[in-house]
Amino acid sequence: MALLFLSTRERAPVWHRILTEAGEEMVDGEAAVTDPAAITEIACWTPPADLGRYPNLRAVISVGAGVDHLPPLPPGVVLSRTLSAGIDAMVRDWVMMAVLMLHRDLPAYLQQARQGLWKARPVREAASRRIGILGMGRIGRLVADSLTTLGFDVAGQSRSGAGGPGSTLFRASETEAFLARSDLLVCLLPLTEETRGILGARTFAMLPRGAGLIHAGRGGHLRMTDLREALDGGQLSGAVLDVTDPEPLPADHWLWSDPRVIVTPHVAAQTNPVEGAQHALAVIRALRAGHAVPGRVDRERGY
Amino acid sequence: MALLFLSTRERAPVWHRILTEAGEEMVDGEAAVTDPAAITEIACWTPPADLGRYPNLRAVISVGAGVDHLPPLPPGVVLSRTLSAGIDAMVRDWVMMAVLMLHRDLPAYLQQARQGLWKARPVREAASRRIGILGMGRIGRLVADSLTTLGFDVAGQSRSGAGGPGSTLFRASETEAFLARSDLLVCLLPLTEETRGILGARTFAMLPRGAGLIHAGRGGHLRMTDLREALDGGQLSGAVLDVTDPEPLPADHWLWSDPRVIVTPHVAAQTNPVEGAQHALAVIRALRAGHAVPGRVDRERGY
Repeated sequence: MALLFLSTRERAPVWHRILTEAGEEMVDGEAAVTDPAAITEIACWTPPADLGRYPNLRAVISVGAGVDHLPPLPPGVVLSRTLSAGIDAMVRDWVMMAVLMLHRDLPAYLQQARQGLWKARPVREAASRRIGILGMGRIGRLVADSLTTLGFDVAGQSRSGAGGPGSTLFRASETEAFLARSDLLVCLLPLTEETRGILGARTFAMLPRGAGLIHAGRGGHLRMTDLREALDGGQLSGAVLDVTDPEPLPADHWLWSDPRVIVTPHVAAQTNPVEGAQHALAVIRALRAGHAVPGRVDRERGY
Repeated sequence: MALLFLSTRERAPVWHRILTEAGEEMVDGEAAVTDPAAITEIACWTPPADLGRYPNLRAVISVGAGVDHLPPLPPGVVLSRTLSAGIDAMVRDWVMMAVLMLHRDLPAYLQQARQGLWKARPVREAASRRIGILGMGRIGRLVADSLTTLGFDVAGQSRSGAGGPGSTLFRASETEAFLARSDLLVCLLPLTEETRGILGARTFAMLPRGAGLIHAGRGGHLRMTDLREALDGGQLSGAVLDVTDPEPLPADHWLWSDPRVIVTPHVAAQTNPVEGAQHALAVIRALRAGHAVPGRVDRERGY
C-alpha cells in the first residue's frame, strides 16, 4: 500500500514529510517503483500512460482542481480532484482583481498611460454594476459573497441550484435572462462536453452591449475568434483572461497586444503542497475506511 | 440666504433640484449673484479669490473630500468637506483593486504580455501578505475591513487611535514598527504640513525590501524622485498611484512608461452630485439650527 507521487519536484519533500509522519508510504517517481502491485494511489497532474501496470490501483488524485485533461481510468479506479480552501481563496482573489479592473476601466487607463494621457472617465458605484457568475460551485459562491460585500449587484447561474446569500440565482433554463443582466460575466465552470466553447458568439450576443468578460475556467470554454469579433464589434468592451486556447499563448498571438484584454498565464491558483498532501492523505484514509472519497469526480458529469 | 454654486456644470441641475425641493435658494455661478449679502454658503472646489465680497458668508463647502488646496478663510467662516458613503466606497474599491494587482504581480504580468511571455510566478495566499494602511479615518477603516475579509494581514497607523475589527493598530509614535511590517503600504492620509512629502526615501527605507506602494492620498505626499530611486534600487518593487506630483502628469513623464508603476488619473472617487447636494443641505440646516456642521474641517489640524 503506497502512494506514487508524480507531481512537481519542489513539492515532493513536503508530501513525503506529511505522508510519512502520518504512517503512509510514498514512492517518488515511476523509476523508484520496485513493486507495482504495492501502488494503491497515484497523485499526479498527468497520469502514466500505462495504468495497467498497477494492478491494485484504487485512486488517481489530481493535484489540481480540474480533471478535464485526464483520460478515462480503468474500471474501479476512483478519480479525486484536490479541493482546498487555499485554492478557492486564490481564485476568488484573482476574480476580485479582474472584476475591479474592468469595473474601474483599467484597460483604458493602461492604454492612456501608453499615450501619456491623463484623462478621467466617469466612476461608477459598485451597486450599478451587474455581475453574472457562470458556475456556482464552492469558488463561485465564495466570489459571489465577496462581490456582494463590496456592493456589486451579483447573480449566479448554476445547474445544481446552489446559490449564496445576497445574490440572485438563475437555473440552467434561464440562460437568456441571466446573460441579459450580466454587465461583467465571470466564468468559473468546469470544462465538460456541455460547457466546451460556451464562451462564444451566441453567449456574447446575449450579454448587454459593451459587457466585460472575466475567465478563470479553462481555455476550452473560450472561442478565441468569437472573442476577437465581439471585441471588434463592441459587443464586448474588455476581458481579463487567466486561461486561453491554446496554452501557453504563442508569443505572437493577437491577445498579448490587444489593449482591451489583460492576460495572466493560468495563475489564478496554485495548489499549496501542504494542502495537496493533506487532501491525498484524506483520500487514502477514506478508501481504507470505505468512506466517501473527498473530491471524488463524477466522470459522467465531468467534475 | 442662498447657496452660491461654483462646481461643475453637469452637477448644477441636480443640486438645483435637491436644494429647491428642500426650500433652499441656490445661485448658479458668480455672474448670477445680484445681492452678495444674500450669499450665506459657497459650494466649490476652488473658492472665489475675493471672499470679502460676501459679507454674510457662513460656510465654504468643498465638493470633494480633500481641502488641502483651499486658502485661509475669513474669520468666522466654517469649512466643510463633503463626506459621503459613496466616496468612501469608491476609494475602497480602487484600493482593493490596487492591493490585489500588486499582491498578484500584475505589473510583472503586464510587462510579460508586452514581451509575449507566458510564465507563471508563485502565487501567495492573502494571509501571507502584510498590508499597512497610513491613515485610519472613515476610508482607511473601510479598506481595512474589506482587506481583512479577504484574509490579508492588515495593520493601520492612526494619529487619533481609531482602528477596526481584525486589524492591528499602530500609534503615531510606532512608525518604525508599522512600516517594518508593511509589505504593501497604502496611503490614505489627508495632505497637511505634517504629512507633506511623507512618501519619501526615509519612509521607503523602513519598509521591507521589495515592498509595494499604493497611493490614493494626494500628490504632495509623494516625493517622485525618491520613488524612482527606491524602485531602481529594489527597495520598492512596484506602485499603483492615483495621485502624482504634478497633476496632470506631463505626457513625457517617466512614470507613464515605467513597467513597475500603474497610474490612474486621480479617479479613485468622484463625488456623486446627489450626495454632494445632500451634504450641502445638511450643512445649511446645521448652521441654521446651531448644530455641529457635518464634515467641518479643523484648519489647524488640516482635515
